[in-house]
Amino acid sequence: MLLAYDGTQFQGWQRLGKEERTIQGLLENTISELAGEAIEVIGSGRTDAGVHAKGQVANFKVRNRLPDSFLETLNQKLPPDIVVQKLDLAAEGFHSRLRATGKAYRYLVDTNERPSVFRRKYVYHFPMQLDICAMKEAANCLLGRLDYTSFTDDKSDRSKVREIHEIQIREKDGIVEFIYLGDGFLYHMVRILTGTLLEVGLGKITVQEIPEILCAKERKKAGFLVPANGLFLDKVYYS
Amino acid sequence: MLLAYDGTQFQGWQRLGKEERTIQGLLENTISELAGEAIEVIGSGRTDAGVHAKGQVANFKVRNRLPDSFLETLNQKLPPDIVVQKLDLAAEGFHSRLRATGKAYRYLVDTNERPSVFRRKYVYHFPMQLDICAMKEAANCLLGRLDYTSFTDDKSDRSKVREIHEIQIREKDGIVEFIYLGDGFLYHMVRILTGTLLEVGLGKITVQEIPEILCAKERKKAGFLVPANGLFLDKVYYS
Repeated sequence: MLLAYDGTQFQGWQRLGKEERTIQGLLENTISELAGEAIEVIGSGRTDAGVHAKGQVANFKVRNRLPDSFLETLNQKLPPDIVVQKLDLAAEGFHSRLRATGKAYRYLVDTNERPSVFRRKYVYHFPMQLDICAMKEAANCLLGRLDYTSFTDDKSDRSKVREIHEIQIREKDGIVEFIYLGDGFLYHMVRILTGTLLEVGLGKITVQEIPEILCAKERKKAGFLVPANGLFLDKVYYS
Repeated sequence: MLLAYDGTQFQGWQRLGKEERTIQGLLENTISELAGEAIEVIGSGRTDAGVHAKGQVANFKVRNRLPDSFLETLNQKLPPDIVVQKLDLAAEGFHSRLRATGKAYRYLVDTNERPSVFRRKYVYHFPMQLDICAMKEAANCLLGRLDYTSFTDDKSDRSKVREIHEIQIREKDGIVEFIYLGDGFLYHMVRILTGTLLEVGLGKITVQEIPEILCAKERKKAGFLVPANGLFLDKVYYS
């Protein structure tokens, strides 16, 4: 399944208790009911509460044959803040998370003085003057196969090595767009990278400090965690 | 005042009872409280329940001098779905509605198969194949100083003569944008014009029928009323 959702009213991807509205929980309940059997939905990764997706990928296994109209029926049953854009039969053994080879995330910052009433749920309003050139330079120092311990809130002892292929930063009409391409991202990583780059844009962190922050492997050396509502999972790549 | 609001959670512009959340009511309550005197807010026109505004204009009279920080304080007090973008002292005798010389409205239609989870509150999802050329031709027949009785739900005996200067129709990525420029618009007029043009796009109404619909001066001859959520008051003109 290729999915889009507005994360505003969800407590994230992962199924929680009966009371919590989560994307996985909603999909599992709806598909299980329609398919007439209990199914499990596996996503390419968990998005946090408030994070949006334009191109999340998820899969599930069914024993029963699904009718051709299944996608239509499913979208009719789902609330308007989640849409299944495509539904295809996957190859045997496909796994949305384990088979993913890369991901693209986007983060939007609105630097205009007044927040936009229309975009407010999808941008972080940060009405500051930013040095975009310095931010681009700093972004270049964050690329490669590196240990991103300083840029995650994951406290586990799993490896924090990831590869970021590309960070694009663009500005138009006061909206600053950050695009991150990498093989995978740690817990809160995109939001901490963005907060760090914003602090570079403000002059609070210098470009020269970026390698030091990486080497320190300490979360507190990096910048602040920007809010979830500006973050979009744009695309998941498979080989 | 230059105002933007997301109409989704409002029961329109006009102040109603205590229970109803309206833009005028909210502005009057908030400004009266901050200014320390009862004020009346006069808008350039009433927008209906669910209609949005990017550039609504409104004015109010105060006896007390307002502090320089008034705009900041006002925006802090207002909820996130309404923003006052500018606040300036108007000339004596200025009246937002009576002095308005023209208005620009925009209507957005999403013709893509699946609704967008992000734009759904700001577009009318109408997943149909439209003949844009025929719609543009029909739009040309609707321009000028005409009696728009067929294109309003206003049942009063006031004049239904208005002038539409321009109707632009553009399509990009399945989103069809209608822009209407005129000296003023009747109750439901933009939405009925759009519904009629959509029926032309579907081939249910021909371009040749447009003059007949105008001459008939009967609401039921024109097309359907499109929903409020795709409509934006973009700009109000003053001489």
